[in-house]
Amino acid sequence: MNEREFAGKTIEILREIRQRQPLIHHITNFVVMNSTANVTLAIGASPIMAHAHDEMEAMAAFAGALNLNIGTLTNEWIESMLLAGKAAGNRGIPIILDPVGSGATPLRTGAAKRILAEVPVTVIRGNASEIMSLFSEEIKIRGVDSLETVDAVRDGAHRLARELKKVIAVTGAVDFVTDGEKAIQVHNGHPMFGHVTGTGCAATTAISCFCAIETNALIATACALGYYGLAGEEAARMSQGPGSFQVALFDALYNLSEETMIAQLKIRQL
Amino acid sequence: MNEREFAGKTIEILREIRQRQPLIHHITNFVVMNSTANVTLAIGASPIMAHAHDEMEAMAAFAGALNLNIGTLTNEWIESMLLAGKAAGNRGIPIILDPVGSGATPLRTGAAKRILAEVPVTVIRGNASEIMSLFSEEIKIRGVDSLETVDAVRDGAHRLARELKKVIAVTGAVDFVTDGEKAIQVHNGHPMFGHVTGTGCAATTAISCFCAIETNALIATACALGYYGLAGEEAARMSQGPGSFQVALFDALYNLSEETMIAQLKIRQL
Amino acid sequence: MNEREFAGKTIEILREIRQRQPLIHHITNFVVMNSTANVTLAIGASPIMAHAHDEMEAMAAFAGALNLNIGTLTNEWIESMLLAGKAAGNRGIPIILDPVGSGATPLRTGAAKRILAEVPVTVIRGNASEIMSLFSEEIKIRGVDSLETVDAVRDGAHRLARELKKVIAVTGAVDFVTDGEKAIQVHNGHPMFGHVTGTGCAATTAISCFCAIETNALIATACALGYYGLAGEEAARMSQGPGSFQVALFDALYNLSEETMIAQLKIRQL
Repeated sequence: MNEREFAGKTIEILREIRQRQPLIHHITNFVVMNSTANVTLAIGASPIMAHAHDEMEAMAAFAGALNLNIGTLTNEWIESMLLAGKAAGNRGIPIILDPVGSGATPLRTGAAKRILAEVPVTVIRGNASEIMSLFSEEIKIRGVDSLETVDAVRDGAHRLARELKKVIAVTGAVDFVTDGEKAIQVHNGHPMFGHVTGTGCAATTAISCFCAIETNALIATACALGYYGLAGEEAARMSQGPGSFQVALFDALYNLSEETMIAQLKIRQL
Repeated sequence: MNEREFAGKTIEILREIRQRQPLIHHITNFVVMNSTANVTLAIGASPIMAHAHDEMEAMAAFAGALNLNIGTLTNEWIESMLLAGKAAGNRGIPIILDPVGSGATPLRTGAAKRILAEVPVTVIRGNASEIMSLFSEEIKIRGVDSLETVDAVRDGAHRLARELKKVIAVTGAVDFVTDGEKAIQVHNGHPMFGHVTGTGCAATTAISCFCAIETNALIATACALGYYGLAGEEAARMSQGPGSFQVALFDALYNLSEETMIAQLKIRQL
Repeated sequence: MNEREFAGKTIEILREIRQRQPLIHHITNFVVMNSTANVTLAIGASPIMAHAHDEMEAMAAFAGALNLNIGTLTNEWIESMLLAGKAAGNRGIPIILDPVGSGATPLRTGAAKRILAEVPVTVIRGNASEIMSLFSEEIKIRGVDSLETVDAVRDGAHRLARELKKVIAVTGAVDFVTDGEKAIQVHNGHPMFGHVTGTGCAATTAISCFCAIETNALIATACALGYYGLAGEEAARMSQGPGSFQVALFDALYNLSEETMIAQLKIRQL
């Protein structure tokens, strides 16, 4: 696919999201529950945040995608994710994992690996350090901030994707998406994302919305990251700092025109 | 009461809220804790979010109203709600219930019904599907989104209000409020509410603020929904999408003038 | 130090925060997790929110400061704070305590006192009632709102700081900071802070960022409160109500120029 075709596909998926309004079940961290719910709505899907063990099975009956995020993790929440993941897996619902802070503490690295072992995850999205923590012990990370570059983990991510038979997205200045066979780079985005909390988590939410509609998870992920990154470029133009950037980001995700997408999406197959 | 009298009453309650700044004790979901606290402050009351079993009794000593919201429920939180509800009931403090997602999962439907059975709830506010789940097994809901219209549940809500001796508010394009005897429609509001998370929960917060001052819960509920809906109309005029709408909503709740209320509130007794 | 020297010091600390981006480990309440993470980022440091008992030790290995906030407390979270506090203490990491609602319920007063007894806290920041609850039984508080003035607790705060060998900051219209020997007043700030939730918690976050760089905790605290208050003044000029004020506050914390700080910071040694 060329850039123009990726733009067309992005527009097609978005139209379908807005028509079908798939339910995106999130089990996510306390910091971003509000902002990722708003990102889901701005894109046109419908968010549901729920973690009680007793209703994980019931939620899978409605969900178009399951978004798992290990940001403010405890053992009780890992259990919720495993229950929801198995229920979603049984129904063939796409599962998107955000391994926030994997590599920073044994609890997080262990949780990410356990979820990958027990749940049929479709897409993993993380920063370079988080992704690296899934295939190497030599990981450098500090809290939830990556100390690795996307380039440094490209080959490892590609091998891991092939081995696990999953789509892996490493986000950074330029995003790298791979299914272990093909690879795509997304050049949309803006440095201001780094000054607002939860913008990585929200990228994962965008991927979840797109995967609820498009069954080719590699394409869905690349289109979602392009769309989300372009909305950030638009938001940066409309804002004066990180506060107004976040507000403008919700507006841009809601308002971005098809003309702008055709002209400015930079999704490139490698 | 006619429209003009409802507007006068709304203004009177608001003035009193701002003078007495009643404490509104919330036990609510993680998604909306920040936004409903800000709605409480913008209206002029004072929010306290607390759920520890050990302090539910102590909180009732200060509270002007108790707001119970089952949005991201677990059994531990149901217990908090029952403890707080009983303490508030013993002191005659108005209790406002938001049965988020009731009908979608047995956990939620069961929790809503259990709270109604064990706690002297004053007002229930939900969307059409949530309210329907309280009186019918035939409920259609998907996650937290209503698949019913307000009109379809009016008669059921009216009967339920009479049977339970409570005020029930069904919110939607036009809100319907009933105590089982009288009924009121509120025509203020805006479609943009549907694109921001927690705006239903925040409507319940507005009702809680008004009920802390006005003992006629039917009137308090209708005035709160009129005021909240009108602030949304104002916010829509000042904004470009869901992000700026939410910001403008807080501003409008804080700034709405008495002249605007007199001219534009559309609260109509049936 | 005179006003000019405090401004110079504030600028120096901020430059260093932005260069070193210290990690600020927060164990804080659900209401403000998102907003305090964004304040941390706007100031230039890096937030990590984590409370699992299993990773409290690991987090201390990265953290530049530990921020403890008892706003939506349960016993499980008190345990997290004690574990994190001891790990931070063993490594000499500054610990900043926000005793939200101390005095309002025995759970909160008890938790604040237990943390002070078991953890080597560096700075305590609260409103007048919260600080008073730490040295007097005669405390008047309602929920999380102070019913005391800063002036009424100055002497008590000064004595408590000397006795505990800690820095204590009482914030209000004019902030009072003391280490039991010297005292500083901060005249920056704006009444609009009172209409947005979590702005006190965010002041504590600002102190945590500054303490991660400056080892003189008295000076770090005063500079942080001056900077934060001045950003609020700037935000008030750019906004129309509490919603736009909060957005403008994030922008101002990010954008405040050194010229504005030199001209308008009002930090005064007593």
